[in-house]
Amino acid sequence: MTEPDAHETRADTRTRILDTADRLFGHYGYGKTTVADIARELGMSPANVYRFFASKLEIVEAKCERMLAQRHAYNLEIVASGGSAADRLRRFFIDNHRLNLEAFVSDPKTYEIVEVAMAEEWETIQAHLVRMTDVLEALIAEGVAAGEFPPQADIRRSAVCARQAHVSLFHPTLLRQCADDIERAGPEELSEFILRALRCP
Amino acid sequence: MTEPDAHETRADTRTRILDTADRLFGHYGYGKTTVADIARELGMSPANVYRFFASKLEIVEAKCERMLAQRHAYNLEIVASGGSAADRLRRFFIDNHRLNLEAFVSDPKTYEIVEVAMAEEWETIQAHLVRMTDVLEALIAEGVAAGEFPPQADIRRSAVCARQAHVSLFHPTLLRQCADDIERAGPEELSEFILRALRCP
Repeated sequence: MTEPDAHETRADTRTRILDTADRLFGHYGYGKTTVADIARELGMSPANVYRFFASKLEIVEAKCERMLAQRHAYNLEIVASGGSAADRLRRFFIDNHRLNLEAFVSDPKTYEIVEVAMAEEWETIQAHLVRMTDVLEALIAEGVAAGEFPPQADIRRSAVCARQAHVSLFHPTLLRQCADDIERAGPEELSEFILRALRCP
Repeated sequence: MTEPDAHETRADTRTRILDTADRLFGHYGYGKTTVADIARELGMSPANVYRFFASKLEIVEAKCERMLAQRHAYNLEIVASGGSAADRLRRFFIDNHRLNLEAFVSDPKTYEIVEVAMAEEWETIQAHLVRMTDVLEALIAEGVAAGEFPPQADIRRSAVCARQAHVSLFHPTLLRQCADDIERAGPEELSEFILRALRCP
């Protein structure tokens, strides 16, 4: 057993554990991977992994937080990218849809982890929903300030409605089911519908 | 064993089987109820139940069709009820939300059956989605004809978008998860947002 190098920081070790967990979950699935498997792969004792994560579920929570932090950084880039508010809102809807499709739908092993996260780590998911709404609120506020959209009765609530109205484009369960829906609206069409609502006084 | 009365029609026997299945699924859950249990409760042989339904799953399909046919009849009443198109659209969104909440959310046993139906009887669900869109299309077309809404580029597609934009109000999984969403839009608020989209040229 090689325990972590004394020069490696606690954050580095956490990252190594998460990277290894990512790989093993992706290979064997979440249900079939144990903390002992992750420890063995890293040449650590299970007890040492438990010094960093109290349970396999805590590893999923950290993985989920890391993935959602990356997504939020991506969404903040959309806000900062300039152009009209409508164009950036379209990009937000279309890109988040595509990234979620790539992440969940093609890969049953990732979908399994996302389902665990949705069921067990609702606070992490909820925090991300709030950040999605923050991004939508910022874009709508800029659109109102620029005269692209009329004043909204309550910009935060417009943002909540815009988020909820496009849930079929980002929710993992719906992404899978919508593929079987013969009349579904894709991200381009649904985002135009949502923009119509934002443009209407 | 008392086999069905010779005077009972085939449709009556099917109805009796479905009613009994409803009661046993509601009491013991779908997973724990067998076709033999349903037959015993009816004083029939299992072989006789199988003359009407080839499997437990066929019973669920018939239950699901029956429930959705009732819902569609309710929705057609909304269309026929008169008043402005906007008022009838609001009623469609709000009443379907309330009826689904009552049907699925309070009762884990019904939710179990709905989950089976969503996974196994997609054609029945899909047919209902098409009928929901038919109702929305009829209401939007009336609103356009009455000058309540501006002409739509494609009324069918406006109806598809309106249906998809309110999926959080009727999808069983989302109805459960949305209860934990601290910023969710309720049926009144989301339906006003969707009406804004329909009113915007």
